[in-house]
Amino acid sequence: MKTHQVIFQPSGRRGKVPEGTTVLEASRLLGVGIESVCGGKKSCGKCLIRVETGTFERHGIASGPDHLSPLTEEEARFTGERERAEGYRLACAAVILGDLVIFVPEKSRTGTQIVRKEAAKKAISLNPAVRLFPVTPAPPTLDRPLGDYERLAAALGERFGLQRPEIDRSALIGLSGALREGKGTVTAAVWMEREILAIFPGEVEETYGLAVDIGSTTVAGYLCSLKTGRLVATQSLMNPQVAYGDDVIARITYVMDHPDGMEKMRGAIIECLNELIRNVTADAGLSPMDILEITVVGNTAMHHFFLGIDPRSLGVAPFAPVIHRSLDVKARDLGLAAHPAANVHILPIEAGFVGADNVGVLIAEEPYRRDETVLIIDVGTNGEMILGNREKLLCASCATGPALEGAHIRFGMRAAPGAIERIRIDPETREVSFKVIGEERWHPESRLASARGICGSGIIDAVAELYRAGILDESGRFRSDLATPRLRSTDRKAEFVIAWPDETTLSEAITITQQDVRNVQLAKGALYAGAKLLMKKMGIETIERVTLAGAFGSYIDKGSAMLLGMFPDCDPDRISSVGNAAGDGARIALLDRDKRQEAEQMARRVEYLELTLSEDFQEEFMAAMFIPHMEDAFPHLQIPEGKTETNGENGEDAGGSFRSHRHSSCPS
Amino acid sequence: MKTHQVIFQPSGRRGKVPEGTTVLEASRLLGVGIESVCGGKKSCGKCLIRVETGTFERHGIASGPDHLSPLTEEEARFTGERERAEGYRLACAAVILGDLVIFVPEKSRTGTQIVRKEAAKKAISLNPAVRLFPVTPAPPTLDRPLGDYERLAAALGERFGLQRPEIDRSALIGLSGALREGKGTVTAAVWMEREILAIFPGEVEETYGLAVDIGSTTVAGYLCSLKTGRLVATQSLMNPQVAYGDDVIARITYVMDHPDGMEKMRGAIIECLNELIRNVTADAGLSPMDILEITVVGNTAMHHFFLGIDPRSLGVAPFAPVIHRSLDVKARDLGLAAHPAANVHILPIEAGFVGADNVGVLIAEEPYRRDETVLIIDVGTNGEMILGNREKLLCASCATGPALEGAHIRFGMRAAPGAIERIRIDPETREVSFKVIGEERWHPESRLASARGICGSGIIDAVAELYRAGILDESGRFRSDLATPRLRSTDRKAEFVIAWPDETTLSEAITITQQDVRNVQLAKGALYAGAKLLMKKMGIETIERVTLAGAFGSYIDKGSAMLLGMFPDCDPDRISSVGNAAGDGARIALLDRDKRQEAEQMARRVEYLELTLSEDFQEEFMAAMFIPHMEDAFPHLQIPEGKTETNGENGEDAGGSFRSHRHSSCPS
Repeated sequence: MKTHQVIFQPSGRRGKVPEGTTVLEASRLLGVGIESVCGGKKSCGKCLIRVETGTFERHGIASGPDHLSPLTEEEARFTGERERAEGYRLACAAVILGDLVIFVPEKSRTGTQIVRKEAAKKAISLNPAVRLFPVTPAPPTLDRPLGDYERLAAALGERFGLQRPEIDRSALIGLSGALREGKGTVTAAVWMEREILAIFPGEVEETYGLAVDIGSTTVAGYLCSLKTGRLVATQSLMNPQVAYGDDVIARITYVMDHPDGMEKMRGAIIECLNELIRNVTADAGLSPMDILEITVVGNTAMHHFFLGIDPRSLGVAPFAPVIHRSLDVKARDLGLAAHPAANVHILPIEAGFVGADNVGVLIAEEPYRRDETVLIIDVGTNGEMILGNREKLLCASCATGPALEGAHIRFGMRAAPGAIERIRIDPETREVSFKVIGEERWHPESRLASARGICGSGIIDAVAELYRAGILDESGRFRSDLATPRLRSTDRKAEFVIAWPDETTLSEAITITQQDVRNVQLAKGALYAGAKLLMKKMGIETIERVTLAGAFGSYIDKGSAMLLGMFPDCDPDRISSVGNAAGDGARIALLDRDKRQEAEQMARRVEYLELTLSEDFQEEFMAAMFIPHMEDAFPHLQIPEGKTETNGENGEDAGGSFRSHRHSSCPS
Repeated sequence: MKTHQVIFQPSGRRGKVPEGTTVLEASRLLGVGIESVCGGKKSCGKCLIRVETGTFERHGIASGPDHLSPLTEEEARFTGERERAEGYRLACAAVILGDLVIFVPEKSRTGTQIVRKEAAKKAISLNPAVRLFPVTPAPPTLDRPLGDYERLAAALGERFGLQRPEIDRSALIGLSGALREGKGTVTAAVWMEREILAIFPGEVEETYGLAVDIGSTTVAGYLCSLKTGRLVATQSLMNPQVAYGDDVIARITYVMDHPDGMEKMRGAIIECLNELIRNVTADAGLSPMDILEITVVGNTAMHHFFLGIDPRSLGVAPFAPVIHRSLDVKARDLGLAAHPAANVHILPIEAGFVGADNVGVLIAEEPYRRDETVLIIDVGTNGEMILGNREKLLCASCATGPALEGAHIRFGMRAAPGAIERIRIDPETREVSFKVIGEERWHPESRLASARGICGSGIIDAVAELYRAGILDESGRFRSDLATPRLRSTDRKAEFVIAWPDETTLSEAITITQQDVRNVQLAKGALYAGAKLLMKKMGIETIERVTLAGAFGSYIDKGSAMLLGMFPDCDPDRISSVGNAAGDGARIALLDRDKRQEAEQMARRVEYLELTLSEDFQEEFMAAMFIPHMEDAFPHLQIPEGKTETNGENGEDAGGSFRSHRHSSCPS
């Protein structure tokens, strides 16, 4: 096999890779992070890299464009003439044919994710599946030479009423030694009063469990005491599956297209969870062996990858999952580095695109215990919605795409240091102020040149503020008659400058393009239309309460969200953000086993509405693409009078200047 | 690390081993079979080898006695002066210090075992734990995009009344593919109506199970159709744990003395079972994946080794096992190469020395369904007994030692080609005729020089015949006044020649020594005394029926056995051999799941009698060492009148010449 030396700059990582490898594959082999939103499908243009030309004496290699395969049509689409002249290529398309020095521009580098999944402080009733039972079995006698297990079972029966529980082989293997070491006293960790998972010498008081939320982008773990319910350590990690595609469809495609795709995809998440297990237990001064129970939530694709189940049915109509019901699997069977006998409880699934994460939201928010009807929107890479109350529960999935998370946006990025997360536009001067993650003060006051892109909450702010400042009309079109240098045209496409080059680390301006606005409109339109169809099915005209869930939900500005028309009108006082409700659900299921039954029942009770099957969907979707909507009334929204005609008013902040508002025009 | 070249002759196996290795360890490393009855404890003297002296040009090494550690005290005990001069050493004691050529004499070689565990043709009712359910689930629709599992479960419920069975992850992983491949029709293999173990595409009619009997010496496997109960293939293999000691105590000691002892012991049996699985499935034209259920019996030590459970409690008072109850473990968790989701059912244990093998005997023989009281003797490396009827069940273990299997006997060997298995002695001429395993005709007619030793049934025959021919008195002492060249003295110890040197492959005579007779007396005395104590506990004076179980039981001459006094008097018509009843029990439990519950109940109901705790044991044991007994009457035994005084009568065969018989003298 012919191999070539490849050096990535600026990291300096290098190594030999086989001829025929793409630059993206080489970057993975050598541990270099290159963005790949589409999963190597040549459709996102995020993996732009530059080939260096010349002889690199120090490394003893020569590099140049001819050491890569010829430019493809797709690459031509994502690069300008000047870029092409400078040697820019798509890492996923360019195939290595010789030694190379590759420069990865900052905007193509994968950043360090700011983890936004924090455990909410919820009161959870404590009724764990694993409980500890300390006992001192009667010693064997010559008259009654009973087995260790039988004496243990008798003691557990006498003292705690347990009925001869089964025993995991690993516990059985340790039983005699524990009895000796504990001088006759041991503590049995028993799962559901049904199976002895572990035996500890002497009296042990505390055992631990881990709740896991496997998001498409972020994996969050919550290590809890099963005795007190206390959260003892928490950590979030990037889901390393991101290397195979940013969204679930890209990853499903990857698994279907590669014979070892599932192995890699499952291996990546298991490895990630094992790192998480090591980290949280080390943080708490514990051992991974102390984890005796794990609960897992995640969307249906994450669920299938985690279990190694073929995900292809999720990608084709009727989009059915392989299994809905909850599962209990031993940690060792999944390859998880917790106690080998630990039970892993995977929460059930509602539908192909409404997964166990949404079941987590369900049992955390409990709409089924409310008289009022609540709309719960969980905005992640996909949008999932629940509408319901004590009487009826509906759910739906909205194909928002990842625009609201910053993908498919020209300067979109994840919520990482350097991301613009808040934007305000002065309606009079059309001057912009913004806040960057990792900085205390707002630009332009801060005067740091640190912006690298815009994350989800910043994008929502941007579009809402552009509309509020009269720079966008309600159809989402940039107005052409405004005298501001920030609004400009490139290649006959309009864009609005959020950050000037000297405010960024990119040596170019960060802008919101007409296409970006369209992508946000598509996403928010899908959410809005979904909510409308759910309301119709439910037979209601107004929503009494809106709950924004998901890590994203916590950071979104609710004023901007409603002004943008992400959901129908609602009293702002009754709109709340609940943070990572899916993770809360996992934690609740960990600490209260009765909630698992509730989850199973509710997952079956909730009625799934396939939005794309509804005749009204297209119409609702079109109307909902307007900002905030083509025709729906927003009694709770105050928008500056005549805003789309004049720009005379200056809202103090996005949540502060509402007006009654009704549209009648139509987007172009 | 210094290593030395070692060559074993006559096999020619060679290799480098670290300095400090014993010759026995080296033989294991190089795959040379050397007998090791005591497990390397220097106490059995079976591993005698000879060091060759000289320069071996072809191999480029020099060998000599000084390449081994100095002779130990133990070795001096097991070797005569001439042997020592010839370079004989104990393989377990001699430590390698230089290059060596080692000759392994035939009597020290482990032979090929003649496998005597055959599946009895028993009528077994068919009610397997694993059943096949072919179904065609309704396809998913856009209206009801139900998961594959949910549709399968619905179909299983509708057609067969199954209640949402659990599903093994491996089955879940294969579910979608099986539905596609089977064009919508699949067959679910369901365990106990509770868990789906496997999904096959289309309609599958037959599935298979394996019953396993792990003996200390022989491992037997019975591959059965779970649809018809038919035995489709069977095989027996040597238990490779023999390399670590012939009896359970030697193996327990090995495990306790070596840090990696359990790993090796368990690894050996798992590897053996996997070979057995490969062989029987290949024989039947099947794949190991076709095995969906396994049942296992074995004595308590085999049971503990198989599961990896610390066996040390079995070796010390009160000799309690770690667990009595039956266990169900997945094949994958045990490392067995059957279907990974296959359930392995391990039968329960009665007591420390009455294991799951005896539970197999219990459910195969069902003494608890009889009105008459039956004594069941399972003679293996250890002797286990059940006495009971519908009302009451007793069991006991007799420390017979392995003498009745040919170990601890000067020329004792396993039932392998070359072993003398039948012996007749003419009471008048005191001439001997014998039959060798692997030959059609009896010696001396056959005139082949093929005898290598004496196996268990031959030893029982020998002692019984020596007694019947008046060569031994009832105390087991050789008479000193007989004029036959076969009775001779060496080192002031008497021995009787069974085969002359020209009838053997050993270049020496095969004899029965006074010590051999004593060992047989100890073994049979233990059995007899055990039976007496059980009868006493049961409150009965005579036994209505005797059942000889165990592979050994099938080959034993019942006339010789009763004449020897292996058990109390019984009508010969009511003495029967049932072959490997333990294996039958495993097969019964495989094919009829209700029998597993019966086994669990009976294992708990049977009352274990610890013989060594009984005050009467020593007295009964002493009396029972006489042939056939010091004082008990044998109304069914006809022994030639005045046999111990004169030798005038000639029995036609051992079973034919009985007389009423009562002793009063005492063994010396």
